[in-house]
Amino acid sequence: MASGDIAWLITATALVMLMTPALGFFYGGLVRKKNLLSTIVQCFVIFAVISIVWALWGYSLVFGPSINGVIGFSPGLLGMGSLSINTINPALAPAIPELLFFAFQLKFAAITPALIIGACAERIRFKSLLIFIVLWSTFIYIPIAHWVWNPDGWLRGLGAIDFAGGIVVHISAGLSALAAALVVGRRKGCATPWKEHMKSLDGKAAAEFKPTNIPYVLLGAALLWFGWFGFNAGSALAANEIAVSAMVTTNLAAAAAAFSWMIADWILKGKPSAVGIAIGAVVGLVAITPAAGYVNISSALIIGLAAGVISNLVANWRAGRSRIDDTLDVFACHGVGGIWGSIATGIFASAAIGGVNGLIFGNAGQLLNQLVAVAVVAPFAFFGSLVLLKLVNVFSPLRVSEKAEDAGLDLSEHGEEAYQLD
Amino acid sequence: MASGDIAWLITATALVMLMTPALGFFYGGLVRKKNLLSTIVQCFVIFAVISIVWALWGYSLVFGPSINGVIGFSPGLLGMGSLSINTINPALAPAIPELLFFAFQLKFAAITPALIIGACAERIRFKSLLIFIVLWSTFIYIPIAHWVWNPDGWLRGLGAIDFAGGIVVHISAGLSALAAALVVGRRKGCATPWKEHMKSLDGKAAAEFKPTNIPYVLLGAALLWFGWFGFNAGSALAANEIAVSAMVTTNLAAAAAAFSWMIADWILKGKPSAVGIAIGAVVGLVAITPAAGYVNISSALIIGLAAGVISNLVANWRAGRSRIDDTLDVFACHGVGGIWGSIATGIFASAAIGGVNGLIFGNAGQLLNQLVAVAVVAPFAFFGSLVLLKLVNVFSPLRVSEKAEDAGLDLSEHGEEAYQLD
Amino acid sequence: MASGDIAWLITATALVMLMTPALGFFYGGLVRKKNLLSTIVQCFVIFAVISIVWALWGYSLVFGPSINGVIGFSPGLLGMGSLSINTINPALAPAIPELLFFAFQLKFAAITPALIIGACAERIRFKSLLIFIVLWSTFIYIPIAHWVWNPDGWLRGLGAIDFAGGIVVHISAGLSALAAALVVGRRKGCATPWKEHMKSLDGKAAAEFKPTNIPYVLLGAALLWFGWFGFNAGSALAANEIAVSAMVTTNLAAAAAAFSWMIADWILKGKPSAVGIAIGAVVGLVAITPAAGYVNISSALIIGLAAGVISNLVANWRAGRSRIDDTLDVFACHGVGGIWGSIATGIFASAAIGGVNGLIFGNAGQLLNQLVAVAVVAPFAFFGSLVLLKLVNVFSPLRVSEKAEDAGLDLSEHGEEAYQLD
Repeated sequence: MASGDIAWLITATALVMLMTPALGFFYGGLVRKKNLLSTIVQCFVIFAVISIVWALWGYSLVFGPSINGVIGFSPGLLGMGSLSINTINPALAPAIPELLFFAFQLKFAAITPALIIGACAERIRFKSLLIFIVLWSTFIYIPIAHWVWNPDGWLRGLGAIDFAGGIVVHISAGLSALAAALVVGRRKGCATPWKEHMKSLDGKAAAEFKPTNIPYVLLGAALLWFGWFGFNAGSALAANEIAVSAMVTTNLAAAAAAFSWMIADWILKGKPSAVGIAIGAVVGLVAITPAAGYVNISSALIIGLAAGVISNLVANWRAGRSRIDDTLDVFACHGVGGIWGSIATGIFASAAIGGVNGLIFGNAGQLLNQLVAVAVVAPFAFFGSLVLLKLVNVFSPLRVSEKAEDAGLDLSEHGEEAYQLD
Repeated sequence: MASGDIAWLITATALVMLMTPALGFFYGGLVRKKNLLSTIVQCFVIFAVISIVWALWGYSLVFGPSINGVIGFSPGLLGMGSLSINTINPALAPAIPELLFFAFQLKFAAITPALIIGACAERIRFKSLLIFIVLWSTFIYIPIAHWVWNPDGWLRGLGAIDFAGGIVVHISAGLSALAAALVVGRRKGCATPWKEHMKSLDGKAAAEFKPTNIPYVLLGAALLWFGWFGFNAGSALAANEIAVSAMVTTNLAAAAAAFSWMIADWILKGKPSAVGIAIGAVVGLVAITPAAGYVNISSALIIGLAAGVISNLVANWRAGRSRIDDTLDVFACHGVGGIWGSIATGIFASAAIGGVNGLIFGNAGQLLNQLVAVAVVAPFAFFGSLVLLKLVNVFSPLRVSEKAEDAGLDLSEHGEEAYQLD
Repeated sequence: MASGDIAWLITATALVMLMTPALGFFYGGLVRKKNLLSTIVQCFVIFAVISIVWALWGYSLVFGPSINGVIGFSPGLLGMGSLSINTINPALAPAIPELLFFAFQLKFAAITPALIIGACAERIRFKSLLIFIVLWSTFIYIPIAHWVWNPDGWLRGLGAIDFAGGIVVHISAGLSALAAALVVGRRKGCATPWKEHMKSLDGKAAAEFKPTNIPYVLLGAALLWFGWFGFNAGSALAANEIAVSAMVTTNLAAAAAAFSWMIADWILKGKPSAVGIAIGAVVGLVAITPAAGYVNISSALIIGLAAGVISNLVANWRAGRSRIDDTLDVFACHGVGGIWGSIATGIFASAAIGGVNGLIFGNAGQLLNQLVAVAVVAPFAFFGSLVLLKLVNVFSPLRVSEKAEDAGLDLSEHGEEAYQLD
C-alpha cells in the first residue's frame, strides 16, 4: 500500500464529491427560474441521503461476498461495522484501504440517482423523490453495480467491462430517466412535439421556457469535467499509468464531443450554442467513462466526436418528433451516451492499455459481451424504475399539484425563492 | 518522507485554500443584495492579509519553541527566515517538509477569522474589520492554536485533543462572533426578537431581508464540503489510514446533519428549506472536525445527526427569543457545533482509530479533558474578542454610518454594486 | 517513478484544467451583461479546441526532438501515436509517465490563448476567434514554448529560466492581447481616453459599462488561485520540496499583490475596490509564475507587493491616458506582470531553492538572461499576433457588425441570453 495511491484516491474521492452539486448547477441553470433552487437542492439532498444509505446497507449489498453473482451480503459490512481502518481487500482494491474504496464508490452511488432528476425536473414532489431515490438506489443501482463491479458479479463473469460506470452509472440512470419522464408526465403547458410547441408561442411565452441561468450551466459543466478526472482516473484505484491514460482519454473525449456538438448545432441551428457546448462536453465525458482505462488516445478522440453528434441528434429527435418531456435530455445524454460508450469500449479496447482487446484489435467477442450487458441493464433499469415509480405514486403522489407547478417548486416545495434582486 | 504524503498535503492545502472564498459565497448569498459583494470580498481580503501575517509572525508564535506552553517564539522562524525547503520537524509533522506544514496551517489561520464576519455582516466598516482581524489573529487565534496544537502547548499537555480544529477554529470563531454581534450591535431596522419582527413586516419589507442569492449559499456549501476533505483528512498530515478514516467520517457527518437539519425544519416550519440543508451540512462538518480522526463511522453518523438538530434549535432560539443579531448564526453553527463536536470527541473517541478512547470506551477522563479545553477557550475567545472590539472601536469606529448602512456596504465601502442586470 | 509524484501531477493537471473556465467567469463578470455568456464560452471552447490541437500536433512540435533549438518534430509523437502508457522521458520529466507530462502541458497550452480574449472582448466574431486561436497556438505559443521549455530550446540554451510560464504563458499572451486590442479596435461607444469618456457619460450610460457580475469575478479569481497551485507547484513535476516551495511562494505573492493593489486603489481612488482586489490577486499569481520554484519566501512577498502596484499603475495609465481599448487590461496584468516576474526571477533567484542564483545573490548574468528572453519573446508575440490577426481578418472578419455589437455577442454569436430572470 503506497502513500501515493492513497493520496490520489483521497483526492479523486473529493473531486467526485463535487460532481453531485455541480450537476445541480448544470441542471438548475437549464430549468425555469422558479425551479432553479429546487433542482440544485435535489442533487444536494440526494448526495446526503445516499451517503447514509451507502454506509448502512449499500456498500454491503454491492461489494459484500456475492450470492450467486446476483447480490452481495455481509452482515459484518452492514452498517460498515466490520471495516477496520487497516483492512485491505485485494479482490476489490489491492493498493488502498477498503475504507477508501468504500468512500470512492459512495460518490458513484450518490451521483447516479441525481442524474435521473433532470428527466422529471420542474414537477416532481420533493418527498416522493426522496422515497423513490432510496428505493431506486436499493433495487436498481445496487444490483446493477453488483453484477458489473463485484468481482463475482454475473455480468462481470460473462466478460463485460465498464471502467468507470458507463453501464452502472449512465445507462442505468439514462434509462431510468426515460421511465421517470413517462410516468411523471409532461410539464404543464408543455405540448409536444416540443419544438413545434415552442414555435407556436409568442416571444414572451417562449422566453419563459428558456434556461434561467446559462452561466450556471457552464459552471456546472466545468466542475463536472474537473470532477470527472476523479471519476475516471480514480477508477484505476491507484496512481499509475492506467490512471494517467484514463485522464488523457477523458479530457480528449470531452473536448471532442463539445466540439462536435457545437459543429452539429452550428450546421443544424445556424449558431454554436453555449448550452450545446456545455452539454456536448458532458456527453463526451459520459461516453468515455466505460472506456477510459481501456482505449488509446485516437480512439478517445473518435468516441468523443461521435458521442457529440449522436446525442445531439437524439436530443433533437426527442424535442422535434417525440411526445416525451425528458426535460433535460437525460436519456439522450446519459442513456444514449452511455450505450454508445459501452459499445465503443467493445470496439476500441486495446490490450496494450487495459489488458483487453476489442473488435478493431480482432476480438469481436468483447463487443458481444458489451452488447449483452447493455441488453440486460437497459431494460432492467427502465422497467424496474417504471415499477418503482408507479409503486411510489400509490402512497406518495409523484407530481405536485397544478397550482404548485405554476408557482414553481422553489416556493411550493421549499418555501424559498432563488434570488432577491431588488 | 514519502512523495505520497507530500502529494496529499499539497492537495489538501489547495483544497482548504478554496474554503475561505467559498465561505464568502456561503455567507454572501445569505445577506441582502446591497451587501453581497462586501461579504464575499471580506473573506477574500482576510485570506490575503492573514497569509502575510502568518508568514511574518503567526507561524513562529504558534509553532515556534514554546515558552511554558503559553506562546511560541523563534527569532529564526520570524518572517519564515530559517525554514529551508528541506527542513523536517518531526515533532510537528514527521512525514512532510515543515514548509508544507506551514502552508497547510496557514489556511486554518486564514479561514478562522473569516468565520466571524457572519455575525456582524451588513454593518461593519471595512477598515475597522481589517484592523480587528489582524489583532484577533494575533491575540486570540495564535495563543489558542499554540495551547492546543503546539506539541508543548499547555492544553495539549492536559490531554485535550482536537483533530482538525473544533476548539481552535470553530469554538474560537463562534464565541468571538457572539462578542462581535453584541459589540457591533443590531442592524438598522432589525428589531428583536427577529422572528416576531419579521412577522410584523409586510411582504415587501420582509422580502428585503431574505437571502439575496440562495444558489450562492449552496455553491458555497458545496465548495466548503469539498474543501473540508482537505481540512480534516489533511490533518492526518500524511496519506494514511487516519486520513482515509477522517474523510469517511467527515462525509457522513455532513450528510447526516444536512439530513437532520432538513427534517427538523420540515417538522418545525412545514417545509424542508434549501438554505437549511446547506447550513445543516456545514454544521455537520463543524461538529465532526475535532473528532474526524478519532471516531468510527457509527459515531460520525450520531455526531452529525445530533449536530443538525442542536444547532437548528439554537438558531431558532436565537431568532425567536433572543435580542442578539448574530446575522448568519455563527454562534449557533460554529460555536455550538464546535462545542458539541469537541465534547463528542471525548465521548466517542476510539483507540482503535486514533489511539485515544472516550467515554463510551470507558475513558471518562478524556471527556473531562475536552470539557476543560472548552471551558478555557470559549470564555477566552469571547471576552478577548470583546476587549479587542471595544479597543478598535476607540480609534476606528466599527460601525458604518446609518446612511452607509442604508446604501449597503457594497457601495459605501467599495464603491461598487454586485450586478448590473439591465 | 513514485506513485506520489503521479498522484500529485494528476491532481495538478486537474486543478489547472479548472483554470480556463475559471478565467471565463473572471473575464465574463467584468464585461457587460449582453456579452457575459460569450466571454465564458469562448474560454470553454478554446480549452476544447486546444485539447485537440495539442494531441494532434502541438505536443510534438513543442517537446519532440529539437531541430536546432527552433522547433520540435517527431512523426511518432504526431497524433500522440507513439506514446505508450509506460514511456518515461527523463529529459522532460523523470518522475512521471510522459503521457502525464503531455496532459499537464496541455492545460498550459489551453489557458494561454484564452487569456488573450480579454483584450478584444465584446466585439470579436466567434468564428474568427476560433481560427485565430488555432493559428496563434501553432505559430506563436508552440515556438515560444519550444524555445523556453524544450531541453534543447535555444532560449533555454542561453540560460533563461521560467518556472511555470511567466514568459511562455503570460508575456506571450499579454503582448498578443495588446496586438489584438489594436487590430480589433475599440468597442463602439468607447471613446478614449477611457476615464475621461466615462466621466462624460450620465449615470445610466456609465452604469452600462460597469462589470455585469462582480461575484463571478471573485469566483473566477478564487478558482484561478486554487488552480494556480496546480500550475506552479505542479511545475516541479514531482511531489517534492520544490513543489512545496512553489506553493508557498505562489500563495504569498498572490496575497501580497491583492493587498498592494487594494492599498493603491484606496489611495488613488478613495475606496478599496472588490474588482481591484480580485485582479490584484491574479496579477500576483502571474508575477510569481516564472519565479515560483526559484525564490524564497521574502522575495515572493516583494515580488507580489511590487506586482500589485506596477500593474495597477499601468492599468490606470491605459484607462486614463492611452487610446487603447484593452478591455480587461490583459496587457497591464499578464504582459506587464509577466515581464516583471520574469525580470524578478533574474533578480531574486536563490540557488538554495532552485539551483540558480540571481542578481541579489551575485549573479548578474541571470538577470541578463531573463532580459534577453523578454526582449525576444515580447516582440515576437506582439508582431506575430499582429500579422496573424490581420491575416485572419482578410478571409474571416475579426469584428462583428455594429448591429451585432449593439445586441451583444451572446445573442448575435450564440443566439442565447445569459439569464431569464422574470
